[in-house]
Amino acid sequence: MAGQISVRAAVASDVEVILEMIKELALYENEPDKVLATQESLQNTLGLKEGSKCYAKTLLLYEGDKPAGMALYFNSYSTWRAKPGIYLEDLFVKPQFRGKGYGTTLLATLAKEVLEIDGARLEWSVLKCMLPAGRMMQEAAEIEIDGIGNEPSIKFYEGIGATNLAKEWQQMRVDGNALKDLAKRGAFGDGK
Amino acid sequence: MAGQISVRAAVASDVEVILEMIKELALYENEPDKVLATQESLQNTLGLKEGSKCYAKTLLLYEGDKPAGMALYFNSYSTWRAKPGIYLEDLFVKPQFRGKGYGTTLLATLAKEVLEIDGARLEWSVLKCMLPAGRMMQEAAEIEIDGIGNEPSIKFYEGIGATNLAKEWQQMRVDGNALKDLAKRGAFGDGK
Repeated sequence: MAGQISVRAAVASDVEVILEMIKELALYENEPDKVLATQESLQNTLGLKEGSKCYAKTLLLYEGDKPAGMALYFNSYSTWRAKPGIYLEDLFVKPQFRGKGYGTTLLATLAKEVLEIDGARLEWSVLKCMLPAGRMMQEAAEIEIDGIGNEPSIKFYEGIGATNLAKEWQQMRVDGNALKDLAKRGAFGDGK
Repeated sequence: MAGQISVRAAVASDVEVILEMIKELALYENEPDKVLATQESLQNTLGLKEGSKCYAKTLLLYEGDKPAGMALYFNSYSTWRAKPGIYLEDLFVKPQFRGKGYGTTLLATLAKEVLEIDGARLEWSVLKCMLPAGRMMQEAAEIEIDGIGNEPSIKFYEGIGATNLAKEWQQMRVDGNALKDLAKRGAFGDGK
């Protein structure tokens, strides 16, 4: 028999559960080796330890005493509206708990939080396709990948009212050495 | 003669300058009517008034005493790295100040801030094309738009080391009535 479901903000003792779900999601995306997060680094950045930074919030969904799903998110901002929003970084429901509406429950809980802060929108990014194991994500930007489609996720999101912004917007990222190089290119305050 | 440049965080008295640049950017994107922000709503959400919320930070670039550019941003988070990042919501350099490297200065200043907070990445979204004036952005998701390409911006970003994530990721958004509907769909705490 399934236990009663509950959704609550993560506390210090949840860090093991959070790391486990981050790893399970990375495995689903065929990128298990990309998880560099540790219990300690999560505690230090998710406000799970006294005096630690809190860069993102974590909602956990439990079925009885079993962790079943997670939504990890932070506040975004719309300049046109001058209103905050929520950016959902990771949504995960463990495979054995799927098909029960838990993903929708987590999304609906976030939508409610957006309205409560007088916010304008709930946003996230969905992986278009997963690469075959062993292929590097980096390559995907350069060559056409024969990946495994992620239509189930995309259809799920469209079903709860989400608009696909891909025709209008493309995401850009600077990280790694490119980030260090950019920081050296005339950042204000460097001897000017 | 051009004055000396300076980059600094916005203060209360900058709200007029910020709103003006938000409106200029919307005009560049052929969406001038979409700006619902007012001086008051910006003050209340950008931490520009005592006791107000601060959902995003604003860097302003001045040439002498003339406002020339702006970067409006908030912290993001990478679960794989357990590190924060910066999401750049709006970057704008006034047309009469372009070609002087001010956009790069603002981006480099943000890249430096990412490194200072031991962050992993600097991210943003770039408009692929602007619609002819009067066409609604909403339509772009449904039909192929004969828009005005935004290649100058995209090339500029690639030039400073940014990777295009569009082959892997697509952005999704829920707002307006869809957001209200989603909030009603079993958000936890609604009589459960």
